[in-house]
Amino acid sequence: MPGPKKKTAKTKRAQPKATPAADIQSFRERIDGIDTQIHQLLNERARVAKQVGASKVAQGLHTADFYRPEREAQVLRKAIERNEGPLRNEEIVRLFREIMSACLAQEEPLKVAFLGPEGTFSQQAVLKHFGHSVRALPMGEIREVFEEVQAGHADFGVVPVENSTEGTVNHTLDMFLMSPLKICGEVELRIHQHLLGKMSGLPAISRVCSHQQSLAQCRQWLDEHLPGVERIAASSNAEAARRARDEDGTAAIAGQTAAEVYGLNLIAHDIEDRPDNTTRFLVIGRKPFDASGNDKTTLLFSAGDTQSPGTLHRLLTPLAQNNISMTRIESRPSRKHKWDYVFFIDVQGHASESPLKEALEALKKQASLFRVLGSYPCAVL
Amino acid sequence: MPGPKKKTAKTKRAQPKATPAADIQSFRERIDGIDTQIHQLLNERARVAKQVGASKVAQGLHTADFYRPEREAQVLRKAIERNEGPLRNEEIVRLFREIMSACLAQEEPLKVAFLGPEGTFSQQAVLKHFGHSVRALPMGEIREVFEEVQAGHADFGVVPVENSTEGTVNHTLDMFLMSPLKICGEVELRIHQHLLGKMSGLPAISRVCSHQQSLAQCRQWLDEHLPGVERIAASSNAEAARRARDEDGTAAIAGQTAAEVYGLNLIAHDIEDRPDNTTRFLVIGRKPFDASGNDKTTLLFSAGDTQSPGTLHRLLTPLAQNNISMTRIESRPSRKHKWDYVFFIDVQGHASESPLKEALEALKKQASLFRVLGSYPCAVL
Repeated sequence: MPGPKKKTAKTKRAQPKATPAADIQSFRERIDGIDTQIHQLLNERARVAKQVGASKVAQGLHTADFYRPEREAQVLRKAIERNEGPLRNEEIVRLFREIMSACLAQEEPLKVAFLGPEGTFSQQAVLKHFGHSVRALPMGEIREVFEEVQAGHADFGVVPVENSTEGTVNHTLDMFLMSPLKICGEVELRIHQHLLGKMSGLPAISRVCSHQQSLAQCRQWLDEHLPGVERIAASSNAEAARRARDEDGTAAIAGQTAAEVYGLNLIAHDIEDRPDNTTRFLVIGRKPFDASGNDKTTLLFSAGDTQSPGTLHRLLTPLAQNNISMTRIESRPSRKHKWDYVFFIDVQGHASESPLKEALEALKKQASLFRVLGSYPCAVL
Repeated sequence: MPGPKKKTAKTKRAQPKATPAADIQSFRERIDGIDTQIHQLLNERARVAKQVGASKVAQGLHTADFYRPEREAQVLRKAIERNEGPLRNEEIVRLFREIMSACLAQEEPLKVAFLGPEGTFSQQAVLKHFGHSVRALPMGEIREVFEEVQAGHADFGVVPVENSTEGTVNHTLDMFLMSPLKICGEVELRIHQHLLGKMSGLPAISRVCSHQQSLAQCRQWLDEHLPGVERIAASSNAEAARRARDEDGTAAIAGQTAAEVYGLNLIAHDIEDRPDNTTRFLVIGRKPFDASGNDKTTLLFSAGDTQSPGTLHRLLTPLAQNNISMTRIESRPSRKHKWDYVFFIDVQGHASESPLKEALEALKKQASLFRVLGSYPCAVL
């Protein structure tokens, strides 16, 4: 479909592709000019960041102390605010994360421990949050992630705290019962599952193919909408989508990307059983950080031995009275007494700022165990 | 170790950390200003890139055609040339790759097939070469990477061609015998192995721990320098380095990074048996590209049935006469006749430019089979 032709003289007939070479050349020159400016600014930014570092070193702080999650969150929020495109917020945030990562890594790259092996969602979370200029250290167990950070061998750790398979969550929460480490960030990887295929509706489906975990995440939906239809485990969702493209009667469960990549119809969307099918990770470190302006706080507390029905409600009253939103609550056995529970609660706000500060003071008085596990910036994209 | 104190008045005693807050604040404001400029330039670059795209669409080209490996190589080489630091060339190249990746992905992200699963070196090679704004599609076999590209389901493919374990190389070369695809890039991931430990020399080592592949890559060196010392396979080199830190008498084979991360001594460096312990990948696509100014060409040819001793020498004469450097030669059975071989040769230069152009014309006349598999930019970092 050739569009309206430009009136540029076609001098170079010899050129195999009929591109208006002069146009392309002038665009490229403009891009080269822009790149030169970007390049200068990147190095200027790195120089200023180095000065910040030098002034911190002069005060006896270590390189790992240069990383300020609250500052990074602010930089990224500002970038989203001022973004007018055409680059999408997602791309801009990714580029600025990488720029900060490169500037920070000038002295000594941050070491970040995570639950390995390499190639896992946990590693994705590390790179999404810290950029690619860090040293990501794979650990065999969640416990080891905590140990490496506590011993100072790693500057930070990234551990899963909520995911759809659930296996690891409790382990992470239980670690906080024993560990003095602080939560200093969160990372979210959202996962939506869709039913994809070449067919136009459910009746034409004779088998559903996907990675075992994705099949498990959509079990209820499949039981309800495709009872009796064979389910086949594939090595990956991408592999499943490819089969759906090549085999008659095969549908795949996979993400939006797979539909586009393999040219499949979206037969049913968001079929995951849990609407919040997000894997959420916590960043753990050795010290607390300042407020970023949009923060979350994770609390650990217990009512003690009294197990009267109104205990939890009474404990939560100070939060309600101070208008604090609670975004999550989990209970776990305290491991001290039978039927004694501890609660992990996520609330909005930073522990050092009103109104959360006052609410926590009141809560503290009533709880037998009370700890702020950390105040940290809400995940930016 | 507090350094020389600045004379800034410490007004804010309440602040827990003794940072000269005013200094930090002014640095941060400067960085915010720089970020705003970078941001504007990134979007301006994206707009110009979009115009280039629009002008190509107007000529009936597809989005996948916007990717120009020779242009990308030129942009990166210019960036290295003008780089004065403090950001290292490696970081600058990485950032510009990501910027180009984001600009290119505005319309529709490139789809790149690779030998999966995710988390492999092949995936690393895809992301290193194309940046993170592509859709990386894991395939189960090298053959499938070729098929996906040939069918147009993927825009490009990335396949290993040389690696230390060797298993996959021949398979890739053999695919080129049948496939019409063109080589349009190369990616190098260099791997150096070191012997690391807490001890200061070889006599104190009672066991060597590493990933099985790394142990295999250093077998000769170990046989020679540490005969009879136990070799233990670990799940990763990082795991091995951790054991070397925690266990007396254990040394690890791992990269430079592990020495820094785990605080180990470098007992012996570059102990890999092959000095060129680089995994090299080829980027494959459906069409050839123009010269970038520093290119390589891969040729496939055969002398035919005559197996007289001087055949290969005679075939290579036109290259020598035209002063063409040959960087690599591999022979493979032609699969047509017994003892009939084909040769894969890498030479410097682009097939469309002198002196390679003339040399190839002469070579072509003498060979029974002759194909230019591709001319492509030499790997940039």
